[in-house]
Amino acid sequence: MTEKAIVLLSGGLDSTTTLAIALSEGYEAHAITFRYGQRHEVEIEAARRVARAFGAAEHMLVDFDLRQFAGSALTSNLEVPKDRPLASMADGIPVTYVPARNTIFLSFALAWAEVLGSATIFIGVNALDYSGYPDCRPEYLRAYEQMARLATRAGVEGQQGLRIRAPLLEMSKAEIIQRGLALGVDYSLTLTCYDPSPDGKSCGHCDACLLRLKGFAENGLRDPAAYQPADRIPA
Amino acid sequence: MTEKAIVLLSGGLDSTTTLAIALSEGYEAHAITFRYGQRHEVEIEAARRVARAFGAAEHMLVDFDLRQFAGSALTSNLEVPKDRPLASMADGIPVTYVPARNTIFLSFALAWAEVLGSATIFIGVNALDYSGYPDCRPEYLRAYEQMARLATRAGVEGQQGLRIRAPLLEMSKAEIIQRGLALGVDYSLTLTCYDPSPDGKSCGHCDACLLRLKGFAENGLRDPAAYQPADRIPA
Repeated sequence: MTEKAIVLLSGGLDSTTTLAIALSEGYEAHAITFRYGQRHEVEIEAARRVARAFGAAEHMLVDFDLRQFAGSALTSNLEVPKDRPLASMADGIPVTYVPARNTIFLSFALAWAEVLGSATIFIGVNALDYSGYPDCRPEYLRAYEQMARLATRAGVEGQQGLRIRAPLLEMSKAEIIQRGLALGVDYSLTLTCYDPSPDGKSCGHCDACLLRLKGFAENGLRDPAAYQPADRIPA
Repeated sequence: MTEKAIVLLSGGLDSTTTLAIALSEGYEAHAITFRYGQRHEVEIEAARRVARAFGAAEHMLVDFDLRQFAGSALTSNLEVPKDRPLASMADGIPVTYVPARNTIFLSFALAWAEVLGSATIFIGVNALDYSGYPDCRPEYLRAYEQMARLATRAGVEGQQGLRIRAPLLEMSKAEIIQRGLALGVDYSLTLTCYDPSPDGKSCGHCDACLLRLKGFAENGLRDPAAYQPADRIPA
């Protein structure tokens, strides 16, 4: 029987590559996406496109509203930083950090894993480019895994413990793109931007866009995603 | 400045007593209740009554739907067990167990704690009466705390680590009731039943009702909650 895995899927470059990796390892992929009050519904559309294109066994959409807690540019009206030097992204915790977001995401994934009888959750976090996010650090993921093993039926009944797989953890953006392209990922389907237009075009100026563009440039490639205005796309 | 605490509040006997304990220790209590597709909306009403009666600083209601994952009598159409011997409740994991429920609840509480600058979350779990639930065990709570300290801004910036307080953990139901009454809790406001009527009357036969009724009986008291049919209430 094919082993099932839960894959956290935002529809961005990282989670899409992570889905491709899970599938390449032979997992039956159950994708889960969260509509949590992020400002851009177009993210959900990207996740739907990707799940469909990759043939995920299921695509679950979970709704809740993190805006009621406030506290991040991604869910409230704070300004998303634009065009700041890449080096400065490593300084402190960015305003785009959403409190406990990965913890909430992983907890829903854990519930689904338990119901499906899956022992593996894939998450596309990255400790290099997002070093400022507390919940992207390896020690956080290990602690989550430890907790999850005690949280569930499997933990009580002595079955195989849950594993959190974060295959991109130590990869640069350029390496992630290389890996995804080798697996046949069509990155034109993905949306990475923190501040996209209503029709799903990327801004080209936020941290996420800058890192993504740099990753493609380092591979000598042009990002196939749609940007606006067009003149801002590096050649 | 008064210290803030997040209190998980279902409106049942345990979480209500936990709220009373948090307030008695001088915390400014921020209550959080989850509407997660449980079959009884009357639970939410009980939580509202309790939060209002106790003067919680805020009462946050978080909506999501755990029914989409299925897997428990509390969220799907499985039969809630009735009139089973109390001793058998300790055998294995009850069908009323909801996968990863406390993990999801605590994760939202963690997000709110981080936004409010609170370092304390109160949860009314009990390891004696609910020994069958993996996520009510002390080792689970310790692992959650450990994970939470790494998950948040405070963990990165070396501030005070988050504490999960579970003051009822080692108490019997009779002791919980005693403690609550000493703190002036009006238990007629609370709803504990797994299978209440649409107007909020308890069934008197599910595990939760049986444990609650036994707790009052051991204190030589009559449970002030409304039961139906009336003839099933022990004298």
